[in-house]
Amino acid sequence: MVHRHKERGTYDHDAIHRILDEGLVGHVGFVADDQPYVIPVLYARDGERIYLHGSPLSRLLRTLGQGVRMCLTVTLVDGLVLARSAFHHSVNYRSVVVLGTATAVTDPTEKRNALARVVEHVILGRPQDARGPTNAELKATEVIALEIEEVSAKVRTGPPVDSKRDYANLGHVWAGELPLTLVPGHPVPDDRCAVAVPAYVSEYSRG
Amino acid sequence: MVHRHKERGTYDHDAIHRILDEGLVGHVGFVADDQPYVIPVLYARDGERIYLHGSPLSRLLRTLGQGVRMCLTVTLVDGLVLARSAFHHSVNYRSVVVLGTATAVTDPTEKRNALARVVEHVILGRPQDARGPTNAELKATEVIALEIEEVSAKVRTGPPVDSKRDYANLGHVWAGELPLTLVPGHPVPDDRCAVAVPAYVSEYSRG
Repeated sequence: MVHRHKERGTYDHDAIHRILDEGLVGHVGFVADDQPYVIPVLYARDGERIYLHGSPLSRLLRTLGQGVRMCLTVTLVDGLVLARSAFHHSVNYRSVVVLGTATAVTDPTEKRNALARVVEHVILGRPQDARGPTNAELKATEVIALEIEEVSAKVRTGPPVDSKRDYANLGHVWAGELPLTLVPGHPVPDDRCAVAVPAYVSEYSRG
Repeated sequence: MVHRHKERGTYDHDAIHRILDEGLVGHVGFVADDQPYVIPVLYARDGERIYLHGSPLSRLLRTLGQGVRMCLTVTLVDGLVLARSAFHHSVNYRSVVVLGTATAVTDPTEKRNALARVVEHVILGRPQDARGPTNAELKATEVIALEIEEVSAKVRTGPPVDSKRDYANLGHVWAGELPLTLVPGHPVPDDRCAVAVPAYVSEYSRG
């Protein structure tokens, strides 16, 4: 994230799709009154299209629905890269940046599909259990679509890269990678839930 | 993240500091040629000041160093909120949004302190082991500072909230929370490392 020479740009759409699908929360950037804002969002990919949803009352959706330029960034943190020098410390990560202009999704069928995709993106198998939106709920939800056209990805993997001198002089300093993963804990049923935990919850994993 | 009424805004600086300190990667938003960009960054807090660093060659640092308006957002995902209806699905999370204008840090002492803070933010205890920057490395690193003044936080906690009718009719659907945590795996020493894993690596946790 720090040292440009260690980052490798990729424009391979399969790799980009995998990062978008493994990511849970994205960050949307937009501008309002000359001020850039970055807001965490849930999203879902359907082919070469990304869906975002939210309340029509939110500034985010209200602004994006007007067709302004936006950016969606999804970042997966894979681990810490601990070098012998502070300078060569880094993070292993995969990120995707999608630029473009969103369009409001108004067709009820596409809107329903988009919302199911978002739930499925969060937790696969869930749309089969949870009730889909009523017409009133559908109206109370704004959905926008962003095409995956102007897109790039950056990936950093592997061990630290130290300078020759530091390998020689700093042999006493531990150096390597510390992997990091988003791991589920024990499911907590709510007060009114009296059924068994489904497998898609108890065996939840991303990617 | 979806339903505004479940989000609680907070302006308590202690709560804001805790979120900033627990977060690992932030997302910076800025505008260049009318296009908003969102880029993942490492950062560190020192009192009411946030430091970002990077290569002076990067568009990010080059742009921010000119004093344009920016946004830094840090989001912690705490878990999935699985309701009986798709509509009431949500995510438990804590996020902080800092708006402002960055200033370039040029004083070598403050710059060194800022970089040590960033390493420490990534992994506490590391600045005592890893070698600090040489003068040449210090020159090759740009550091900018953002004051924590225009700041807000949003937090969603707790179980799903379903509609009365769904509690009654959808008793067969599991509902509750699935906590998520960023968890370290086994440290992987690099090829030239022959020393024991320090406790600050093997016992790594955030927050």
